[in-house]
Amino acid sequence: MQKFFYPRSVAVVGVSEAPTNLAQGIVANLLHFKYQGKIFLVGRRPGTTYGLPIFPGLSDLPEKVDLVTILAPAKVVPALVRECGELGISRVVVESAGFSELSEAGSDLEEEVQAALRQYGIRLVGPNGLGLVNLEIGLALPFAQMAPDLRKGRISIIAQSGGVATHMLAWMNKEGLGLNKFLSLGNKLNVGENEALEYLLEDPGTEAIYVYLEGLQDGRGLLAAAAQATKPVYLHLANVGPETAAIAHSHTASLTTDERVLEAACRQSRITRVKTQSEFLNAARLVGQPAVKGNRLVVFSRSGGEAVVAAYACRQWGFTLPPLSDRLAQIIRERSRAGVINPTNPIDLGDVFDFTLYTDIMAAVCRDPEVDAVLFNYGPLADFEREAGREMARRMLELGREAQKPVAVTLLCTLEEEDYLRDTLGVPPFYFPEDAVQALALSRDQAARAEILAPAEPPPLPETAAISGLLANSGSGDFLALSQALSVTAALGLPAPPWEAVTTAANAAAAATCLGFPVVLKLSASSLVHKTEAGAVILNLEDAAAVEEAFARLATVAQKYLPAGEPWQVVVMSQVAGGREVLLGARRDDSFGPVVAFGAGGVDTEILDDVSLRVAPLNPAQARELVAETRIGRILAGTRGQPAADLDSLNRALAALSQLMMQFPAIQEVDLNPVRLFPGQPGLVALDARIRVGV
Amino acid sequence: MQKFFYPRSVAVVGVSEAPTNLAQGIVANLLHFKYQGKIFLVGRRPGTTYGLPIFPGLSDLPEKVDLVTILAPAKVVPALVRECGELGISRVVVESAGFSELSEAGSDLEEEVQAALRQYGIRLVGPNGLGLVNLEIGLALPFAQMAPDLRKGRISIIAQSGGVATHMLAWMNKEGLGLNKFLSLGNKLNVGENEALEYLLEDPGTEAIYVYLEGLQDGRGLLAAAAQATKPVYLHLANVGPETAAIAHSHTASLTTDERVLEAACRQSRITRVKTQSEFLNAARLVGQPAVKGNRLVVFSRSGGEAVVAAYACRQWGFTLPPLSDRLAQIIRERSRAGVINPTNPIDLGDVFDFTLYTDIMAAVCRDPEVDAVLFNYGPLADFEREAGREMARRMLELGREAQKPVAVTLLCTLEEEDYLRDTLGVPPFYFPEDAVQALALSRDQAARAEILAPAEPPPLPETAAISGLLANSGSGDFLALSQALSVTAALGLPAPPWEAVTTAANAAAAATCLGFPVVLKLSASSLVHKTEAGAVILNLEDAAAVEEAFARLATVAQKYLPAGEPWQVVVMSQVAGGREVLLGARRDDSFGPVVAFGAGGVDTEILDDVSLRVAPLNPAQARELVAETRIGRILAGTRGQPAADLDSLNRALAALSQLMMQFPAIQEVDLNPVRLFPGQPGLVALDARIRVGV
Repeated sequence: MQKFFYPRSVAVVGVSEAPTNLAQGIVANLLHFKYQGKIFLVGRRPGTTYGLPIFPGLSDLPEKVDLVTILAPAKVVPALVRECGELGISRVVVESAGFSELSEAGSDLEEEVQAALRQYGIRLVGPNGLGLVNLEIGLALPFAQMAPDLRKGRISIIAQSGGVATHMLAWMNKEGLGLNKFLSLGNKLNVGENEALEYLLEDPGTEAIYVYLEGLQDGRGLLAAAAQATKPVYLHLANVGPETAAIAHSHTASLTTDERVLEAACRQSRITRVKTQSEFLNAARLVGQPAVKGNRLVVFSRSGGEAVVAAYACRQWGFTLPPLSDRLAQIIRERSRAGVINPTNPIDLGDVFDFTLYTDIMAAVCRDPEVDAVLFNYGPLADFEREAGREMARRMLELGREAQKPVAVTLLCTLEEEDYLRDTLGVPPFYFPEDAVQALALSRDQAARAEILAPAEPPPLPETAAISGLLANSGSGDFLALSQALSVTAALGLPAPPWEAVTTAANAAAAATCLGFPVVLKLSASSLVHKTEAGAVILNLEDAAAVEEAFARLATVAQKYLPAGEPWQVVVMSQVAGGREVLLGARRDDSFGPVVAFGAGGVDTEILDDVSLRVAPLNPAQARELVAETRIGRILAGTRGQPAADLDSLNRALAALSQLMMQFPAIQEVDLNPVRLFPGQPGLVALDARIRVGV
Repeated sequence: MQKFFYPRSVAVVGVSEAPTNLAQGIVANLLHFKYQGKIFLVGRRPGTTYGLPIFPGLSDLPEKVDLVTILAPAKVVPALVRECGELGISRVVVESAGFSELSEAGSDLEEEVQAALRQYGIRLVGPNGLGLVNLEIGLALPFAQMAPDLRKGRISIIAQSGGVATHMLAWMNKEGLGLNKFLSLGNKLNVGENEALEYLLEDPGTEAIYVYLEGLQDGRGLLAAAAQATKPVYLHLANVGPETAAIAHSHTASLTTDERVLEAACRQSRITRVKTQSEFLNAARLVGQPAVKGNRLVVFSRSGGEAVVAAYACRQWGFTLPPLSDRLAQIIRERSRAGVINPTNPIDLGDVFDFTLYTDIMAAVCRDPEVDAVLFNYGPLADFEREAGREMARRMLELGREAQKPVAVTLLCTLEEEDYLRDTLGVPPFYFPEDAVQALALSRDQAARAEILAPAEPPPLPETAAISGLLANSGSGDFLALSQALSVTAALGLPAPPWEAVTTAANAAAAATCLGFPVVLKLSASSLVHKTEAGAVILNLEDAAAVEEAFARLATVAQKYLPAGEPWQVVVMSQVAGGREVLLGARRDDSFGPVVAFGAGGVDTEILDDVSLRVAPLNPAQARELVAETRIGRILAGTRGQPAADLDSLNRALAALSQLMMQFPAIQEVDLNPVRLFPGQPGLVALDARIRVGV
């Protein structure tokens, strides 16, 4: 990546003298941002633009360039890339569109390019993107117009949409947030987000990274890249539902990610997920400040109303407003002769016109180890206050910096002060107190996560041989027979109640008699997903006659619901009374691989909507956190006089389930619902199990 | 209110020549905004400011003014108000602070003012506010600096914080949202939000209203004022939790409102609750456009990435992106010769440089009755496109206006176009697609609510005499005895299982034998809130001996948990098997009065957090909506093969409960938990009932 961001010379291919030539935009940007290397232009027709000559081909250039940027019709790109290879040029940027995002023919072109990359060992950024920018050396390759006065700063961007990225750049500029480096991924034919992220995490010029993606082929790679991140990484992945799937595919040939998995994965990593561009812009205002290490906030406000708004935001974002220390209360009482200020937090300084009171209180707050961050709201109420107010703001921020306390600033009344703060003091103000509190909360959550993250080391599965055997005998069906599925589940530490699989009514009655009444009969077959609705589960069978009759009913159900010829079996199971129903599940996500789920189970599970996820593997300690996130988990922990259920066994079973997914790639999906736990009693039992296998 | 907003002359009291005199700010604002009436200044020391003479007293003015604005120390305000009364002046604005928000002494001053208002029939705005503004006649009374180039427009503001309001005004100005009228309520000593809202809802200059409050004394009055609103009303009430209570009280002497009640009340009314200033600023960009009448959106985007972002926002905000009509798809196919555009929605026009294609598609979309709103994203990719792009944007908006289709605009790449849209076309652009979709969703929800709202007419309670009798005999305790509470509940159509109240073990055994086993024994007493934890409910009693033993245990519990001398009773109740547990509740909210609750019941109700609220009264149809909002409501409606429970009886019981609260002001709180319903069976039973009575 270093060679992409720090080339000593650049050739722009596709330039002409025509006024509508888009490649001219690249030249304009390079000149405008004062690229420190050499610039060469290449185009089919000779000529001059921006005072630079247009060479007919790459081989006509006076020297071998470090980087070639192509904005020419897609159909000529493969030949151009091969030409780069012949000339020994190893870094190519392609901004042209018309590849896999558009058509089959475009995909074929991409394959041609891919072959050239392999043949010559070339690395390529794009196609269908805006190239890259490195303001450290004035490198600016986008063909689209960029904000002319782009600020140089500490934030870098990786983006899969040139439109989103340039819009973001314009906004960052407006808000006083400087750019360091920018990489537009386009179709990610060769260079992808993970490699770019690894580079920028090491890059000394970058202090925070915004990643806009439309597809996440290798989510695990992303998590791995960010595993040791010491800089904030903000991931914006908008393509997470059916609404976006079609447009994202035709835009950058990207596949949709499951939003809940994405959310879980980010929570497990050092990545902060942002759902909107605004959320990032807001959070980025704190880049360069120390992390917020706790949830105790002190609010200074020139306006009582803005103080109320700030206090409400604290409630929403989980901050507390600790009472002021006695010392501080004393300062305020002594200094407020008219008695118009209450020594409370938020501190409403609306009627204080002596600004040294602000800075004196701030100095005391900065010394207070019980305060994690400061929110500072001010604004001149009249012109005569302006200069003193600015001096006070400068001093407040200085005090915060000296004490390493994060300080978020919001303004009041007039917006002129925003320009002063942003452009003179270099501190981007927040629009409103709630924005400031939200940004402080993101910083706090990032810092907290950095501490709790630990690599998952689930204990190995004890009975892999048994499981391998069961899978080997699973036959050709998509789903294991219930009998096999229950055996696999038992190997995870999740026993079923005593059961037997039968194929005749007489065997069913015999099995029931042997197991003891009451029993349950369940019909099991590949295509039967919701057993209860289909009438495929019959409860409360108290004698052999009832069992035989139930078997006959299930045989009818099998005839009615199952495709002709599909094999089925009936499982006779001891009926279990009482307990709480949960579900344990696992599947393979397209972006993140094996994922484990836990939540409220039973037939109402969809409506209860009480399921949490984790990317596998997870150890029992991590499983405990997963369980604690759900309402059913808190109920199982014991509430209002009810004893706890056996959470240790549950946690071990979840860790084992995650290991099963890691060790047996053939298992596509596991659905254990219901699993029952019993308040005040050890153990848990799986009453049903569906396991889908495949390639 | 008309006399406040349209005075022909104004006196400003409290002016001096001193450079730090705050009342000068009022004069400066009146002059700056070219107030069309006469201005008189009053101050203790004679002099001149802004070329106007300072008169020593109100009685020295050359004529009787329509309106007096006071910014003088709180202690002299009562005398000044009396002087206004003597002079026959009936409209006074007080901007001074130092009243009930500060101290007891301040409250006394307010009472003095209050007495003067009554004596002379004066109406007063404030104290502790910024007065009012009416840009129709240049009236601008705030002492604080206002944005100098304030835009005149269609939005009016009622605010209980001058700081929040002036900050909002500055932002509205920046965003191209013009102000019409502004009223700063301060401590609301006399003029309150409801009166102001009624006035502005009738005011021809006002098309939308932002209401910022810190306290809501009369929430029902607000709902009534907004009942017939044909303009959007945005309510921002930040003081809704313990975090804000102290600061809001010391700021404007306001009391906290329960957030969930507020949320429910707004859903029941035509009021749109906004939680942040940003949310209002965003929504207000659509003021003046037709309402969004459905959830079918067409997105035009110059950027594929912004189209993906827009599609994700549609998912979050409940919009669908219907496929384009065949005709539209045909236009796109014909016009897109290079084949670079797919005829999908969102329409990604990233590679279209012929802007007439945009307007042609827009014309067709505008004619399509299956489209409810349009989101339009554009921006020039290069300088040579700028003029054509602006002309296209102008035409797109014109087409939308002609067809009465709401159009939200977002921009790309450069922010210069924002100025063009806002200042030249008069259409405030949104920052990002998600902001536009959120604003469209608020408009849609407002429009939908306006249609479904109907006055609640619950059927009258049949057995009011019985209930009155029970309440009359309730004794002195805060809580009714369980036996009385169950009788009240039965009168609402919520019978309990057969039961008897007893005070001895022998009577308990006899009652149980008479009711039939198994039975439950419950201890009932005023101070016993959570019976289960206290061990005050004993289940599964199968014979007389068990009942006697259980009675003894309850007597011990009574001794252990109850304050000495508190009366208690034991209720013996037939035990009911199976069913689903819900809770029905009611209480009196400080702001909104009687409120009814429904949700998942049982001991886990806090953790399940599945409760919805309504302001009483509600009829059975409205109760059905309340029930349907909860997860347990959807389960009771029948899911995955399970039959529905008796929702009709439940709805009637909820309506009756709401009527109980309306008709019996002595009832403070009702908590019926658990109430059981039975899938597939008629009826419901209340297993427990707590009713608190008081004055």
